[in-house]
Amino acid sequence: MTKDSKSNLSEKQGVSQPETTSKSAAQKIKLNRRKQVSTDTFIEKILEGDITFLSKAITLIESTNSKHQEKANTILNACMPHADKSIRIGITGVPGVGKSTFIEAFGKYLTSLGKKVAVLAVDPSSSINKGSILGDKTRMEQLVTDKNAFIRPSPSGTSLGGVAQKTKESILLCEAAGFDTIIVETVGVGQSETAVHAMVDFFLLLKLSGAGDELQGIKRGIIEMADAIVINKADGDNVKNAKIAKVEFNRALHLYPPKENGWQPKVMIASALNNSGIEDIYTMISEYISTTKKSGAFENRRNDQNKHWLYTTINDQLKKRFYENPKINELLQKEIINLEKGKTTPFNAANNLLNNTD
Amino acid sequence: MTKDSKSNLSEKQGVSQPETTSKSAAQKIKLNRRKQVSTDTFIEKILEGDITFLSKAITLIESTNSKHQEKANTILNACMPHADKSIRIGITGVPGVGKSTFIEAFGKYLTSLGKKVAVLAVDPSSSINKGSILGDKTRMEQLVTDKNAFIRPSPSGTSLGGVAQKTKESILLCEAAGFDTIIVETVGVGQSETAVHAMVDFFLLLKLSGAGDELQGIKRGIIEMADAIVINKADGDNVKNAKIAKVEFNRALHLYPPKENGWQPKVMIASALNNSGIEDIYTMISEYISTTKKSGAFENRRNDQNKHWLYTTINDQLKKRFYENPKINELLQKEIINLEKGKTTPFNAANNLLNNTD
Repeated sequence: MTKDSKSNLSEKQGVSQPETTSKSAAQKIKLNRRKQVSTDTFIEKILEGDITFLSKAITLIESTNSKHQEKANTILNACMPHADKSIRIGITGVPGVGKSTFIEAFGKYLTSLGKKVAVLAVDPSSSINKGSILGDKTRMEQLVTDKNAFIRPSPSGTSLGGVAQKTKESILLCEAAGFDTIIVETVGVGQSETAVHAMVDFFLLLKLSGAGDELQGIKRGIIEMADAIVINKADGDNVKNAKIAKVEFNRALHLYPPKENGWQPKVMIASALNNSGIEDIYTMISEYISTTKKSGAFENRRNDQNKHWLYTTINDQLKKRFYENPKINELLQKEIINLEKGKTTPFNAANNLLNNTD
Repeated sequence: MTKDSKSNLSEKQGVSQPETTSKSAAQKIKLNRRKQVSTDTFIEKILEGDITFLSKAITLIESTNSKHQEKANTILNACMPHADKSIRIGITGVPGVGKSTFIEAFGKYLTSLGKKVAVLAVDPSSSINKGSILGDKTRMEQLVTDKNAFIRPSPSGTSLGGVAQKTKESILLCEAAGFDTIIVETVGVGQSETAVHAMVDFFLLLKLSGAGDELQGIKRGIIEMADAIVINKADGDNVKNAKIAKVEFNRALHLYPPKENGWQPKVMIASALNNSGIEDIYTMISEYISTTKKSGAFENRRNDQNKHWLYTTINDQLKKRFYENPKINELLQKEIINLEKGKTTPFNAANNLLNNTD
């Protein structure tokens, strides 16, 4: 078409004989078919244990694009019947405790037994500095080249809830891909241990031995969550201190009421450097799994965790909807000022706010 | 009118000359005026420190009748500017620890100093057996006859939130009535300590000395909340054990990170029977109050508590509205079954439920 043809007054050119099918319609069908095939391929490949497709599917889970999410959900739903068959182990510990080295040694031991190991992470802080735990794969250079290991950094996200949800869904995909041991690492920012604790079968706290007073500075609630405490870097001059720390932790654990499933949390010593203690730790975890599977506690814990995530997701969303309402937010600021001035009670203020959404 | 007049066919009697104002209208005005006067009287009497009216107003707070609640709110709002000036002390301990005897001894000591003491309670279990802590006033027979003391049993209710709200509002009325020390007792059912902790300036845990292993069996989180632990019944043969327990609790308290306000929780020994230790406990609480008032921590805590109650009330109500929706409830049961069968993820199930309220 020439420039002139833009005028409505200009004579229109005759159209040539149309093609039997319109180009755009053909393209749509083609795209659609490609998408269809693609999702099916994803599912097929994941169930075959193809790590490249597993990795791509997790990228879809982590995407904020709604089409990607839709696709991820289709894949996830198809994979669901093949998931849920692994052992999920959570590992936490402050930076410097030797998590990477420990996970590498532990993971290598597991693959040497013929197991397939996936290592995931929950680190809500990773969105801030764009770095993330496990992001630097060179930290586990032996495990990363192991064909029976799959290592995936923490998803980024603004809220722990979002990050945790993505990791939880990734666990299911890894399981569908045949990984029988899932390790979820967390650095323990905010409530991230609680989130990881709520998605694993066994929760392990890594500690260093210090100069006594081992319990000082441990975050509240962590001891209660731990199924085992492993004193890491028990090598060289540290061995003696590690043994002292073991006694102290054992005493501390006895101060807590026993776990509902009857398990008495264990304290163990390990050196990822010397590869010592790793086998014992795996034996202990295996014992825990077989005991709880026999008693039904294993399945109960998974059911409880699913319900926990169901209610947590709903409750978070209810609050989000309420507090992200601009009208509510404005009124809330006013009511908080009234509260501080003693002009209202918390209950009157709450009712005022709630009546604005009726 | 006769029985016959019931028939529509019967001739109607002529009406007599109407009165200048209708009887029902006059009655309405009269009732309304009585109500107006009554609320004003309530406020006036409460501010004068009249215990009978204070007691009646608390009954209105506790009522489930919406007219009573409206009236209670009017009274509460008028009393608000006169509230907030007392010291609020929470006291918890398992049954048998001697709470009543301790509160009586402590309360008598306070009134001997010229203080006015109100004793309230939070016991969510009281609705079940219709009994309630403090219900049996004879347990504090000296304090109950003290004109500077006011003792009120726990309100009954089906939820801790409801019971706690009523007690929190009663605190404000007691303060407006001139009570300068409010003691809130709880027996520690469910989360009731957390609720009481969130409405007091100082939280005191009563304990007995035993045969060692003092920390066994203490509910999770209680130690972290306590601003002081008082080992009660330290008399006769118990004195030695109490001293041992004191050492053990002191050691245990050092395992916890220091409080945000810098306060190091204290362990003390008391015998309500011998009236020993009571004065020291009051001195300690006074020190706490003056230190935190100077640093601003006192006001911060109250502000934080008010915000806590604001958010708690809103969040509870949001959940209540959602889960009490019969449609949601039905769908929830289905989704939980799907979850247990591994047919859905917690996140898919949650979204399904949430989309039903859009």
